[in-house]
Amino acid sequence: MRRICIGFFVCLLMAGVVYAQEDADMKDTFSVIHSRKSVRNFTGAPVGRAELDKIIRAGMAAPSAVNAQPWSFVVVTDRKKLDELAAGLPYANMLLKAGAAIIVCTEPDKAYDQNRDLAVIDASLAGENILLAIEALGLGGVWTAAYPYADRMNHVRTVLGIPQEVIPLNVTPVGVPTGADQPKDKYKPEKIHREKW
Amino acid sequence: MRRICIGFFVCLLMAGVVYAQEDADMKDTFSVIHSRKSVRNFTGAPVGRAELDKIIRAGMAAPSAVNAQPWSFVVVTDRKKLDELAAGLPYANMLLKAGAAIIVCTEPDKAYDQNRDLAVIDASLAGENILLAIEALGLGGVWTAAYPYADRMNHVRTVLGIPQEVIPLNVTPVGVPTGADQPKDKYKPEKIHREKW
Repeated sequence: MRRICIGFFVCLLMAGVVYAQEDADMKDTFSVIHSRKSVRNFTGAPVGRAELDKIIRAGMAAPSAVNAQPWSFVVVTDRKKLDELAAGLPYANMLLKAGAAIIVCTEPDKAYDQNRDLAVIDASLAGENILLAIEALGLGGVWTAAYPYADRMNHVRTVLGIPQEVIPLNVTPVGVPTGADQPKDKYKPEKIHREKW
Repeated sequence: MRRICIGFFVCLLMAGVVYAQEDADMKDTFSVIHSRKSVRNFTGAPVGRAELDKIIRAGMAAPSAVNAQPWSFVVVTDRKKLDELAAGLPYANMLLKAGAAIIVCTEPDKAYDQNRDLAVIDASLAGENILLAIEALGLGGVWTAAYPYADRMNHVRTVLGIPQEVIPLNVTPVGVPTGADQPKDKYKPEKIHREKW
């Protein structure tokens, strides 16, 4: 009986270890959605390629009008390029301490009906998946708008060699959060209309 | 010793039950992102108010430019209204078997800088959270575009009494999926550019 008990102890311990290991990537959707915040304070630590690929893969899982997938992504980890991006963007100074940036792009020519509005919406959905994936991995990110500002879009195009017909929708710095940024409760029941406006 | 062993059995069993109960809402973020699909086939079963509230609450957790939160939501469960919506929308026949619909709306006047592009992007992010929340609950949904189509927006406005200055961005039918709809693998490595375009 004692042997069986020890067996149970060992099993329980192993299960605990496996669960804890998986836990890093296994955060449930609602807690990630509600704990996601705009992280503007990073430690300066790098972000690995495997994590960045996982984040972008999540972006590509978004829906798009008639499945056109007009999006594309530029991933930047080069310190000099991150600093160059920051230099021309009014609200993206956190790039200086970010480990990476993901630029979510979209191409109206590739969207359904070559519609620019649909191209922007499709890539926005990918961009939200990216923000949630960043949070799910315990990293931090923030959507800094390039579109619809011509000067910011042109700066991003110049630094990264993005063609004129491609819209750089946003610059999303990605990094290890210092913990200074906290989620907001934005629930407002008055924004829900039942059965009619 | 036997007593201790039985104690462990009971603890293990209880832990299992608690875990299984939580599991319904505890799907990890990456599996939800990758298993989300456009569900167009519903059983016709109703969707409860608690679930709809949870879904919309997830929508409101999205980020918005300068935290303006220009979005609002109309929730429809009334059979007659769902059918009326379907009657004037070319790609929303699945409403006839859906248990509910969430209409994601946005107001340029309430967006940062009164910018319509930002209003549309902000509400799009809320709309993606809503799609993921639907999937996380084991329900199905699909983004059917109202914006940028004037005829569809006007139909939705008329049926639901939405003011002219409010943009009904989409109609998202929500229902119990039949299982006919499956997720697509949309990963395309050629859409990732490293360090520059």
